[in-house]
Amino acid sequence: LHSKHSAPRLNIFTSMTNLAREENAYNLSQGLPDYPIAQELHVLLQEAVVNGYNQYAPMQGLVELREMIAQELNERYNTNFCSPHVVTITPGATYGIYTALTALIDKGDEVIYLEPAFDCYLPAIEINGGVPVKVTLDAANGFKMDWQQLADAITEKTKAILINTPHNPTGYVWTKDDWQQLALLIQDRDIYVVSDEVYDSIVYDGYKHVPGFLQEGLQDKVISIYSFGKTFHITGWKVGYCVASKEITEAFRSIHQYLTFSVNTPAQYALAKYLEIYEREAAAKLLQNKRDLLMEGMQQSRFKMLNKSIGTYFQLYDYSAISDIDDVAFAQWLTKEHKVATIPLSAFYKAPQNSKVIRLCFAKEDNVIKAATEALRRV
Amino acid sequence: LHSKHSAPRLNIFTSMTNLAREENAYNLSQGLPDYPIAQELHVLLQEAVVNGYNQYAPMQGLVELREMIAQELNERYNTNFCSPHVVTITPGATYGIYTALTALIDKGDEVIYLEPAFDCYLPAIEINGGVPVKVTLDAANGFKMDWQQLADAITEKTKAILINTPHNPTGYVWTKDDWQQLALLIQDRDIYVVSDEVYDSIVYDGYKHVPGFLQEGLQDKVISIYSFGKTFHITGWKVGYCVASKEITEAFRSIHQYLTFSVNTPAQYALAKYLEIYEREAAAKLLQNKRDLLMEGMQQSRFKMLNKSIGTYFQLYDYSAISDIDDVAFAQWLTKEHKVATIPLSAFYKAPQNSKVIRLCFAKEDNVIKAATEALRRV
Ligand SMILES: CSCCC(=O)C(=O)O
Ligand SMILES: CSCCC(=O)C(=O)O
Repeated sequence: LHSKHSAPRLNIFTSMTNLAREENAYNLSQGLPDYPIAQELHVLLQEAVVNGYNQYAPMQGLVELREMIAQELNERYNTNFCSPHVVTITPGATYGIYTALTALIDKGDEVIYLEPAFDCYLPAIEINGGVPVKVTLDAANGFKMDWQQLADAITEKTKAILINTPHNPTGYVWTKDDWQQLALLIQDRDIYVVSDEVYDSIVYDGYKHVPGFLQEGLQDKVISIYSFGKTFHITGWKVGYCVASKEITEAFRSIHQYLTFSVNTPAQYALAKYLEIYEREAAAKLLQNKRDLLMEGMQQSRFKMLNKSIGTYFQLYDYSAISDIDDVAFAQWLTKEHKVATIPLSAFYKAPQNSKVIRLCFAKEDNVIKAATEALRRV
Repeated sequence: LHSKHSAPRLNIFTSMTNLAREENAYNLSQGLPDYPIAQELHVLLQEAVVNGYNQYAPMQGLVELREMIAQELNERYNTNFCSPHVVTITPGATYGIYTALTALIDKGDEVIYLEPAFDCYLPAIEINGGVPVKVTLDAANGFKMDWQQLADAITEKTKAILINTPHNPTGYVWTKDDWQQLALLIQDRDIYVVSDEVYDSIVYDGYKHVPGFLQEGLQDKVISIYSFGKTFHITGWKVGYCVASKEITEAFRSIHQYLTFSVNTPAQYALAKYLEIYEREAAAKLLQNKRDLLMEGMQQSRFKMLNKSIGTYFQLYDYSAISDIDDVAFAQWLTKEHKVATIPLSAFYKAPQNSKVIRLCFAKEDNVIKAATEALRRV
């Protein structure tokens, strides 16, 4: 049985979390919050099972949940684009990205992705028979898009472009201008955009997330992928959703219906009710404080912060003042010797890198951030 | 955007359930239990979220759950084949079947499937780029395998065979002899078997389910797919698992990890605990009574039972003494005029059929079965 992709058999997030456990280290590696979830979610999940929400949901998702999502998006972005017909519930965002590609591309189609890239993008393209075409975001340029490079990467065979904003691992957030540049580039072409926006609610310092599916010139081209796991720090519930034009939504559902059919019903019920009561700014506030705590803790260290994260759970740090071993070896050494697990930046690249950069996850208890940064200051 | 498969955009189970709702009819169509779930499952799901089981599970599934499954299978089948290394938790069995095909076949490979076939098989083959090759189970022969037809269907390009036992919609259960015939047929070939065994615990009249993954000559070839949804009538929880050799398991996980990553953690925790306390024979007992209630209720009707179901949630009935309109029209008429929703047998065939057969689901409250059969006796 040959492998269908070029990614590792066990992903880096899993292996670093395993190493953290073995070494009894503070785990700032996987994007996996360690603090408790909202009490209301306990209550609502219980309400769901007791009220009999235990059988198949409709394949599109519970209508109560799709309505709440549509209403909330319409309010938030001051639009009337959204309705239950353009929202589909998925078992997480990784699944949403994969299934969108299944729906949109054929074997041999080229799919452009941006490196550094979240680890599931490349295998999702490859397993689906796509030909990955890489565009590199340059650290020296704050990981901003290189529009000329993107323009050069587009060919007659390009069928889709994978975007990620807020961007993991760099924390860069696309502006309206970024989207307009993209719209301009592909305006006369049949190119779809799969837009991973799982950190849409986790943006800092007054910046605003700009959703792909709503942008001028892109409404027929973009499928935006979202995650309740990231917003409500319930990554294990595995519920997300995607939003796209009716045509793209239909294509997506025609795969989804036969790939997995439907999504955990009790969780859908609980989330529908929770959307009625949650405080929209809570997640961003909580995590901005955690980011600031991390930055403060790292200030007196020999690690150098790369551009400040304005979204996501993550912040990058350069360790070249400390060591010149490669980042995988460095991350392992850091876990074993200083009891702090992180992710080497090279995990977001296909080819080996000489990055001297690690990613720190700050979606952690304040005392964990404090203790971990204290340990890192001793490095 | 062209369709990736030849199946309907909205599946028959969804459309009949919708029609049942509109017509306020008894719903004996979709395999969707309408009775309450075990109280212990309420308690255990609550325990899961309160105990903090809300973040990503390992991609293979919670080790507690995989251990319980392996232990239970080893006891039940008196073997030591099973361990957490050969069990993978999936977001339902539909997903398990699809992902197994993704792992096992390449574009252009032939995949043999048996008709009547559950509705997701054909699109799962097609979306994965496989070439579906059909073998027909003959109603006149009690829907038993036609081994000669299967032998004739195998070519140099055959990469996989899709089996389903207990079989939906016929209720036929494969014997050890069936498996041995299959093993003989493919003994010198690189052909994999994707075995949908979601009704493994729902077998009647003293018959026993025979699991594919354990059969002599097939242990390196079969991946068996299971469903907690069917066994514990929690179809909406969307948790299943698959069991296969280490090599097949590795190939499966290497797709699963990047397709959806992991499965709802609270449900996995609750199921791990529930496996310690549940009564193994309960589901079969409960449903055998329901099947008998249905058969009893139908006895004085003009519907003729086809071969008696010895597994699954379903029983087939011939209506040719009543009408000669086609089964899709008949099922619609029955829903509208007699307020009983069923599934036309032709939904399990690609080409239009002249079957005069409908499928009744008896995974329903006793009073629903009584009222529905009363209505059907008046037809
Ligand atoms: C799917 S495991 C990865 C979690 C995550 O989003 C990250 O660490 O980047
Ligand atoms: C995935 S919906 C179908 C439910 C079912 O198993 C059936 O009705 O056959």
